[in-house]
Amino acid sequence: MTQRAPRVGIIMGSTSDAPTLRKAAEMLDRLEVPYEMRVVSAHRTPDLLFRYAEEAEARGLQVIIAGAGGAAHLPGMVAAKTVLPVLGVPILSHALHGLDSLLSIVQMPGGIPVGTLAIGDAGAKNAALLAASILALTDAPLRERIKAFRAEQTRAALESEV
Amino acid sequence: MTQRAPRVGIIMGSTSDAPTLRKAAEMLDRLEVPYEMRVVSAHRTPDLLFRYAEEAEARGLQVIIAGAGGAAHLPGMVAAKTVLPVLGVPILSHALHGLDSLLSIVQMPGGIPVGTLAIGDAGAKNAALLAASILALTDAPLRERIKAFRAEQTRAALESEV
Amino acid sequence: MTQRAPRVGIIMGSTSDAPTLRKAAEMLDRLEVPYEMRVVSAHRTPDLLFRYAEEAEARGLQVIIAGAGGAAHLPGMVAAKTVLPVLGVPILSHALHGLDSLLSIVQMPGGIPVGTLAIGDAGAKNAALLAASILALTDAPLRERIKAFRAEQTRAALESEV
Amino acid sequence: MTQRAPRVGIIMGSTSDAPTLRKAAEMLDRLEVPYEMRVVSAHRTPDLLFRYAEEAEARGLQVIIAGAGGAAHLPGMVAAKTVLPVLGVPILSHALHGLDSLLSIVQMPGGIPVGTLAIGDAGAKNAALLAASILALTDAPLRERIKAFRAEQTRAALESEV
Amino acid sequence: MTQRAPRVGIIMGSTSDAPTLRKAAEMLDRLEVPYEMRVVSAHRTPDLLFRYAEEAEARGLQVIIAGAGGAAHLPGMVAAKTVLPVLGVPILSHALHGLDSLLSIVQMPGGIPVGTLAIGDAGAKNAALLAASILALTDAPLRERIKAFRAEQTRAALESEV
Amino acid sequence: MTQRAPRVGIIMGSTSDAPTLRKAAEMLDRLEVPYEMRVVSAHRTPDLLFRYAEEAEARGLQVIIAGAGGAAHLPGMVAAKTVLPVLGVPILSHALHGLDSLLSIVQMPGGIPVGTLAIGDAGAKNAALLAASILALTDAPLRERIKAFRAEQTRAALESEV
Amino acid sequence: MTQRAPRVGIIMGSTSDAPTLRKAAEMLDRLEVPYEMRVVSAHRTPDLLFRYAEEAEARGLQVIIAGAGGAAHLPGMVAAKTVLPVLGVPILSHALHGLDSLLSIVQMPGGIPVGTLAIGDAGAKNAALLAASILALTDAPLRERIKAFRAEQTRAALESEV
Amino acid sequence: MTQRAPRVGIIMGSTSDAPTLRKAAEMLDRLEVPYEMRVVSAHRTPDLLFRYAEEAEARGLQVIIAGAGGAAHLPGMVAAKTVLPVLGVPILSHALHGLDSLLSIVQMPGGIPVGTLAIGDAGAKNAALLAASILALTDAPLRERIKAFRAEQTRAALESEV
Repeated sequence: MTQRAPRVGIIMGSTSDAPTLRKAAEMLDRLEVPYEMRVVSAHRTPDLLFRYAEEAEARGLQVIIAGAGGAAHLPGMVAAKTVLPVLGVPILSHALHGLDSLLSIVQMPGGIPVGTLAIGDAGAKNAALLAASILALTDAPLRERIKAFRAEQTRAALESEV
Repeated sequence: MTQRAPRVGIIMGSTSDAPTLRKAAEMLDRLEVPYEMRVVSAHRTPDLLFRYAEEAEARGLQVIIAGAGGAAHLPGMVAAKTVLPVLGVPILSHALHGLDSLLSIVQMPGGIPVGTLAIGDAGAKNAALLAASILALTDAPLRERIKAFRAEQTRAALESEV
Repeated sequence: MTQRAPRVGIIMGSTSDAPTLRKAAEMLDRLEVPYEMRVVSAHRTPDLLFRYAEEAEARGLQVIIAGAGGAAHLPGMVAAKTVLPVLGVPILSHALHGLDSLLSIVQMPGGIPVGTLAIGDAGAKNAALLAASILALTDAPLRERIKAFRAEQTRAALESEV
Repeated sequence: MTQRAPRVGIIMGSTSDAPTLRKAAEMLDRLEVPYEMRVVSAHRTPDLLFRYAEEAEARGLQVIIAGAGGAAHLPGMVAAKTVLPVLGVPILSHALHGLDSLLSIVQMPGGIPVGTLAIGDAGAKNAALLAASILALTDAPLRERIKAFRAEQTRAALESEV
Repeated sequence: MTQRAPRVGIIMGSTSDAPTLRKAAEMLDRLEVPYEMRVVSAHRTPDLLFRYAEEAEARGLQVIIAGAGGAAHLPGMVAAKTVLPVLGVPILSHALHGLDSLLSIVQMPGGIPVGTLAIGDAGAKNAALLAASILALTDAPLRERIKAFRAEQTRAALESEV
Repeated sequence: MTQRAPRVGIIMGSTSDAPTLRKAAEMLDRLEVPYEMRVVSAHRTPDLLFRYAEEAEARGLQVIIAGAGGAAHLPGMVAAKTVLPVLGVPILSHALHGLDSLLSIVQMPGGIPVGTLAIGDAGAKNAALLAASILALTDAPLRERIKAFRAEQTRAALESEV
Repeated sequence: MTQRAPRVGIIMGSTSDAPTLRKAAEMLDRLEVPYEMRVVSAHRTPDLLFRYAEEAEARGLQVIIAGAGGAAHLPGMVAAKTVLPVLGVPILSHALHGLDSLLSIVQMPGGIPVGTLAIGDAGAKNAALLAASILALTDAPLRERIKAFRAEQTRAALESEV
Repeated sequence: MTQRAPRVGIIMGSTSDAPTLRKAAEMLDRLEVPYEMRVVSAHRTPDLLFRYAEEAEARGLQVIIAGAGGAAHLPGMVAAKTVLPVLGVPILSHALHGLDSLLSIVQMPGGIPVGTLAIGDAGAKNAALLAASILALTDAPLRERIKAFRAEQTRAALESEV
């Protein structure tokens, strides 16, 4: 967690989701976007979930990244309680490999949006990139950092050999 | 809705779910189990959902039947807010035919249970039957009515010809 | 198995299902709900299955938890032979990872209900919690124990750090 | 139903399955294999199911064709109660289009076999053909009739134009 | 298409996708967010796709909503060519009902994010809402309009009867 | 391979399928049913496949068990070339875990039947049991051996403890 | 069927597949590629299938387009009997909407390739385009016709309005 | 990479796809077909992708084999930019085991074809074989090498013992 006031809230249903969500944190670190990260379980701490979502806007958060697995209700319930952009990361689940997580997050009814990323690590990393691209709409230096990351990523791909 | 104090609460995410959930109501009517039925949307009325779940026990409800489709969060979120038995009915969804609804409801993490029934009408009817069988544990006349229903069902099957 | 007369019957199709169903037993132990646990195979011991289901009510069982994998017929067939509440636990299968188990258990036709939980360990634990919540409808001390468990679960989640 | 003693028993879980299973009957009619057809529901008439399966061998049945949909337990439970060959026909179900029926029938555990055919009409027709091919092992005229059917089928395909 | 300079670009792979994407346009109209809408096919007009994505930022677009079906490459390829936030809407496809569209859009590799919404109309409507919530981060009147829409939506749900 | 003339032909698409198909052989050994086992690949040795299927009846084979994985064409193509009963065993495949194998085998068009068993080892074992039950229709001692196996299987299940 | 010696053979398992495969024929007509079209069923006319595949090269065919549904064995079996390029078109099936057809065709084992196109009409059209692009490698006028078609397709997309 | 001018271009989205695509290279080596192999990422190097596809024909490439995983856009986007035959290899993905890769590649809309092979190594090997069979239409010695490979493959299968 960075020292500046967090602009992105990363929440997850369980500590077992942390290795995945850390990919989001690492990307935000790289892009110098301040964030906070904590466990907020839709099922075990529903009141905290509601409070977190209700207070997010006033606390200065601008984007919420929520990761959850199985019957993953965290992203959608946060979205039901805030008008901030909510991004959902489906965690790779044991039995169904994240297909349950994905459908539980992405198939939201009309009226309450959750922008859903890929299952697992790639999705967490991309949630951070999407959050950053959202913030960058009014943060030119951040946009430059994103572009630099993308340019570096492109250069690495161009140089890769097989 | 019956006049006696409801023992079962039937809730659904949207009026479009009503044709399915009415199968639950019809079965409870037949078994003379008083119930109430209303729209409680996890995503559009989250505060109502919490209040409904929090007050259910004190209001005398004993079982909650919750139907929802797509990213179906209603049953699991009710279960997160009450220790009453919660039964989930996955609604047949447009694109994925209820597979999303089913996985969103049944794949709950350890700690918060939702007893899930089949997708669609059969599931709604069976939610009512399961609710009744729960209540019948300490309601001998109800148990007899269930047994009478089951016997009638068996007789109808025995008499069916092809 | 506890010494008091069992209120919950935990049955499974094979000894290979025992590691999963033990999660149900552990939860019932924690909630001080007496239970019994045994192998009853729908396919290899169908007569035992019928006898078990027929005698369950008279023997004082109040809820039956049935776990099975693949073409999982145990929960549904028990439900066909008793009006006690039957809860089904889909076992994680080898090839299809429990999707076959889940669909075989949850997609019951109207008339014979099985309350289905999640695939695998989480489902077994939750079957016990749901059984306890059913029994707690007329057992205030049990309800308090469930609430204490839930409060403890919430506290642990609140304290978890990432 | 033919007048000679039936050699094949066609059973189904519900009258709604009859249009599908009639494809089996029609094929057996064409091949002059005597059969019987009736509703035997695993869930609504479990005792009849057991009695049917137990008595099948003594009654002179040689193959049982069982069709069922959703959580389709009929074929597997019949197989659990007889050593006659049992053939399963997955009925096209409403929500999941027979995928649930298929997995519920085909994924039997080692020890109790069900020979499963395709979902729906083609499966019913083929169950009859497979039953006939089984009986034809010791019934040369029937084998000739099967070969004649196959030859006719081939000729029709050869003559079809597009 | 509104007269003010568009802030959101709605693109789709084919005119057959228009009925779905119009749900996005209608929502943006309601929220008074200026947008443009046009056909940009990844497969039939790849050069236009690249040009559109390259010029979007300079043209003043702030969010791109891209809808496509089947092997849906449009959202991901736009995202590969811009650092603007890209939201993907999976179109309900003929054979696989949008499961192919969903997986083709959401399963992006780490490095290039697409925020994916639900399959079909609900997803299109929610893409517009998410786009608006992104723009509202620095547009207080828009945020009020979103909140008013959400409040109205909640009130309608509260008043719905079954 | 036993010394008596084989009554069952076990064929498979590749030596990599042998560990699975050996479960069929072991069961036939136990039931004292003579069989042969060999590699016959639909794709790599199509002419052998045709010759094998054409000659099977004259060679005295009575049932053919065919195992294959992925785009599994062996069982269906054998069935297209013989009127003997053909039983299909879907092999657990690498990427899709046998779902492809299962659908490729079971979804035969009307007119050419393949009796399909479960994916993997259980399916192979059951193919042998089903083959034996077919042969047992006119082989009373074999039927007794099957019944003895089934009784033993039941006894083992009854004695299993958890 | 055109009058010049056919370069592409379009075959299908059944006349019911003809509406789909005609999309291939129409595209070949447009590109002036001579072809033939006929029913060759892997299951009902296996000998014809083998003869067709064996003679194709000598008859001057250069590409074979094979469409089939369900347990679709036609493309793979043709490929097993020729070294000509074989393109497979999965037909939209009744129960599983072509998922079975797709997996039966595309999941070929290493050693025998089938180039598989999309399920249904789009796949048939594209099989023709791919066949043409193959022939165009040594047929410059055909390549120009393909490019003209592609240019026209692009222009139509550019002109489409929504 | 061979020394002669490459006739086949093997491209892949990432170096992590190289172990799979090397199966294509090995097969081309065996058939003495010159090829090149490189990383071209649709998402990280879109401009390179376009340039590669645009220049392929002029550079003398005759077939392009493109492998990608997850939301696999590489094959389809190459196909959108060239009229050369494009063959797609779905890479086994982490969460969904290549089902996402397969659907993203095979479900192309009418107008832009990609010939799709099986998921993983078998698909890569077969892409090479299909590419070779395409080139062999006007390269008699190559056709003989393919036939020799196929004959050798058949002999190995005939000699395999179980």
